Amino acid sequence: MKQNKYDDPKFFAEYSKMPRSAGGLEAAGEWQVLRENLPELLGKRVLDLGCGYGWHCQFASEQGASLVVGIDISEKMLSKARELNSAENVEFLNTAIEDFKAAPESFDVVLSSLALHYVRDLAPVFLKVAELLSPRGIFCYSVEHPVFTSREQQDWCYDDEGNASYWPVDSYFDEGQRTTNFLGSEVVKYHRTVESHFKALVSAGFELESLVEPCPSPEMIKKMGWQDELRRPMMLILRAVKK
Amino acid sequence: MKQNKYDDPKFFAEYSKMPRSAGGLEAAGEWQVLRENLPELLGKRVLDLGCGYGWHCQFASEQGASLVVGIDISEKMLSKARELNSAENVEFLNTAIEDFKAAPESFDVVLSSLALHYVRDLAPVFLKVAELLSPRGIFCYSVEHPVFTSREQQDWCYDDEGNASYWPVDSYFDEGQRTTNFLGSEVVKYHRTVESHFKALVSAGFELESLVEPCPSPEMIKKMGWQDELRRPMMLILRAVKK
Repeated sequence: MKQNKYDDPKFFAEYSKMPRSAGGLEAAGEWQVLRENLPELLGKRVLDLGCGYGWHCQFASEQGASLVVGIDISEKMLSKARELNSAENVEFLNTAIEDFKAAPESFDVVLSSLALHYVRDLAPVFLKVAELLSPRGIFCYSVEHPVFTSREQQDWCYDDEGNASYWPVDSYFDEGQRTTNFLGSEVVKYHRTVESHFKALVSAGFELESLVEPCPSPEMIKKMGWQDELRRPMMLILRAVKK
Repeated sequence: MKQNKYDDPKFFAEYSKMPRSAGGLEAAGEWQVLRENLPELLGKRVLDLGCGYGWHCQFASEQGASLVVGIDISEKMLSKARELNSAENVEFLNTAIEDFKAAPESFDVVLSSLALHYVRDLAPVFLKVAELLSPRGIFCYSVEHPVFTSREQQDWCYDDEGNASYWPVDSYFDEGQRTTNFLGSEVVKYHRTVESHFKALVSAGFELESLVEPCPSPEMIKKMGWQDELRRPMMLILRAVKK
């Protein structure tokens, strides 16, 4: 059974309060870096895996994509997406990433923002992405960084005054399920190594074009009080081209 | 001034006692994985950057390389290399990695084992490696993993009984010098992110073919008591091809 945490009313209510939910892309610390790593979208057919509120779909539409499809397992997320980001040419579909089907070469760009760490098995999803993409199509995604996901706690070690002492890593090579606390709820994520991301891409027929460990900009760090974000990598952005 | 720690008699004496020094490649936890990632060496011209005792040069020679050049900044290491690994076709040169010069396209394979974290600036070295390689030449190297090098202490956090509690990460995005304790001596290494390795390779004209976070084999873990090696990545192996 695939997890559909975002349809849980309590979790959804908490998610709605996050800066990136209320403020959209500009409030997401990694957005500028993700944006730099996206290909030209003008005239492209774009698929967004785990589209959430649809902010990235809206962006693709504004960039002149010819077609945008956003999929998400959560109907609550899609309702909000239809309300907030209802640009023309954007279609939202209620389906799990693992279950989505479309004709081969239906898309030129597949993107995914912070959703693939909820997927148990990357290999079949990446094979499907390769099949869905046109020749030389681009797959660009962000996930939580393996340094961030290695322990179930996914939190700092703190000193007696409550300051973050350092970020603890453990069980790094023990890939698989992590039941962690996110926004006050239990959420299941899947930890995997950097090597596993690379191998899953190469095995599916991709060449890696970018590997980025994004930091928020100095301005955002200051504005949001995110100084600790420079102390450990929280996210990983990968861009690959179908060979 | 480039560091030449291995010519320090005390440090060299300690290094000589390490399993990998006394036992060669088979005593190095990452060797099997590095070996799997090396290309076919038969008939190839091979350069080893920071060759140390020359174990990898010896291996290349045994695999039928037509020429093997091992370079190292430490004359003590090279003396030992000439004594232990003096196969025909192997030439040892006393020079820093940063200072080595040869004609363009002089080599088909450049390898480096656990030496490049002593190099301050990767970019000029990688550009030189690309120049030294023939078209479609292979660059394969291991370094200490960024998770391992982020803090100067480069050690576990321990509980009251002296057991490793977890591996602390800090200052991850603060790239540069780390003065750390290795074998009872102060040694300067350079911390950089996974992203920086990838970017330095791509900027020098390489395509990444492998990204591996090696673990010792289950047999070695048992034999050597290395159970903690599964808890955090210690090394990174990258193989790239000149485009």
